[in-house]
Amino acid sequence: MSHYAVGVDVGGTSVKLALVSEEGEVIEQTSVPTLGDESPDATVSQIAETVAAFKKNLKAGDEILGIGIGVPGVVDLDGGTVSYPPNLKGWGVVRLGDLVKKATGYETKVENDANVAAFGEGIFGSGRNHNSFIMITLGTGVGGGIVIGKKIYRGMFGGAGEIGHISIQHDGPACNCGNRGCIERYIGQQNIVDFAHQTVGKFPHSPLARTAEDRRLEVKDLGLNAVKNDEFSIHVLGHVGKLLGVALTSMLHILDIRTFIIGGGVAGAGEFILGPAEAHIKTHALASMRHSVKLIPAVLGNNAGVLGAAAMVYQN
Amino acid sequence: MSHYAVGVDVGGTSVKLALVSEEGEVIEQTSVPTLGDESPDATVSQIAETVAAFKKNLKAGDEILGIGIGVPGVVDLDGGTVSYPPNLKGWGVVRLGDLVKKATGYETKVENDANVAAFGEGIFGSGRNHNSFIMITLGTGVGGGIVIGKKIYRGMFGGAGEIGHISIQHDGPACNCGNRGCIERYIGQQNIVDFAHQTVGKFPHSPLARTAEDRRLEVKDLGLNAVKNDEFSIHVLGHVGKLLGVALTSMLHILDIRTFIIGGGVAGAGEFILGPAEAHIKTHALASMRHSVKLIPAVLGNNAGVLGAAAMVYQN
Repeated sequence: MSHYAVGVDVGGTSVKLALVSEEGEVIEQTSVPTLGDESPDATVSQIAETVAAFKKNLKAGDEILGIGIGVPGVVDLDGGTVSYPPNLKGWGVVRLGDLVKKATGYETKVENDANVAAFGEGIFGSGRNHNSFIMITLGTGVGGGIVIGKKIYRGMFGGAGEIGHISIQHDGPACNCGNRGCIERYIGQQNIVDFAHQTVGKFPHSPLARTAEDRRLEVKDLGLNAVKNDEFSIHVLGHVGKLLGVALTSMLHILDIRTFIIGGGVAGAGEFILGPAEAHIKTHALASMRHSVKLIPAVLGNNAGVLGAAAMVYQN
Repeated sequence: MSHYAVGVDVGGTSVKLALVSEEGEVIEQTSVPTLGDESPDATVSQIAETVAAFKKNLKAGDEILGIGIGVPGVVDLDGGTVSYPPNLKGWGVVRLGDLVKKATGYETKVENDANVAAFGEGIFGSGRNHNSFIMITLGTGVGGGIVIGKKIYRGMFGGAGEIGHISIQHDGPACNCGNRGCIERYIGQQNIVDFAHQTVGKFPHSPLARTAEDRRLEVKDLGLNAVKNDEFSIHVLGHVGKLLGVALTSMLHILDIRTFIIGGGVAGAGEFILGPAEAHIKTHALASMRHSVKLIPAVLGNNAGVLGAAAMVYQN
């Protein structure tokens, strides 16, 4: 007899659902389009139908213990309430946990998606051997989650871990959020591309020079060419790493958490970002704290969300 | 029959000791010079002698439950070990908790002094009605402590709360700590004075113009003149408040803790710093988090250290 949890990751374009074993193995997985413009009942029905299908495939005696859901936005643990999630325009204030429990009969836990992804890495991925760590996701934006003592750190109202909105320059460029000089404003995907476009003039012999001058560069090009020793790509990714290091150093000083797990699409450039980030911390952080700092790549990729959501079910 | 705790605050120039009731009342208080150049045994003897004197004055049946000590530097909870505290040059790695327990017979807890002061404000001062808050001390440097759920948040190795070394400008001026653009580098006492000296040319009619031009200004002059509507003083303190607000906004985004308690000598300028800091947060923090942010002045002043040290004894 085996126990399973259903992990749900509600994204802007698709809802991913997985049946996950206690060891973090994905037994069965599916994805449906997000019906974010419709009432939340549409999403609740999608989840209930998938859970019913997962249940049908179980062997006799096997059991689903519950459902975990990651959603964008701030989540109140009371009733799993989601408030005005960005990208889900048809939702207002939704007691998602209660609705899914009612529709499925299973206990349901709901959490912010970045926190859930961090938790997934913590329980089943790179954080497996770390009690406390900070996860940073580098993609379109810069997201994060903080795990302290194997638990998601939520702060007073569930908003903790908004790492992308640490200001690294008090009089820097305006961010969409209302702040200035946010780290996201420098190393969000589009900002990296913009920086590359501005910088390419200094690297006329780069194989990417033409692409960049034509404003057709993508971040993945930089990773691919850095591996081939392209100085331009190495310079741009090093700049990203250094600025990431500035934000991580401030977090280290505040939290004294020395393990950073770096994930997301941009982090595909790996060592070319992580190396300079770590070098910055080891030369700029307080001497009493800089040793034993570790930056490690996330390993779960796009599955961190469903795995973290399922992991919540297995925790008390 | 009453219970008491002894709170000890080991500073760079004096060691403060107080006998404190469970309600946070200081029953008896004394101060001895810090013998920081000598072996730690000298300090242990000072503590033991004072504790013995406190004990002698107790009424029959009254009891001292234990000793709490705040010291500069990073403290390891194992044996209350202090490692190379700045300003105590005669100390190396010292198991201060064990030494004081052996000399006095009382259970002894040791913690970093900034954390202890934050804890004191939390239990007996401005934080009394707040489960979680961040304390910032504005003085020669910028220090801090984080209290989460009425407990000191220490991080992985006791270094958490180094708030003065959050960088607010990645390419800013070098800080003694090795980092660049640390908030302390802008709003530490001497840096405020330097900024005032640079700025006074724009305020030739200020009553402080002459003092500032002669480079004889002190931060307390600014507070005293701001009250009298001196635009120069209000401008300088507003600048301090705004930059403090930048660092607090980043902390809010990381921790989702919305209560900030501001203490220390510089904070004597009160509303002229706290007002602009709060205004900055309310216009620059994420919309989902900016409401319910509160900045409140610390109330315990120089007694926060001994009171916080004593409060540790009353906690498990």
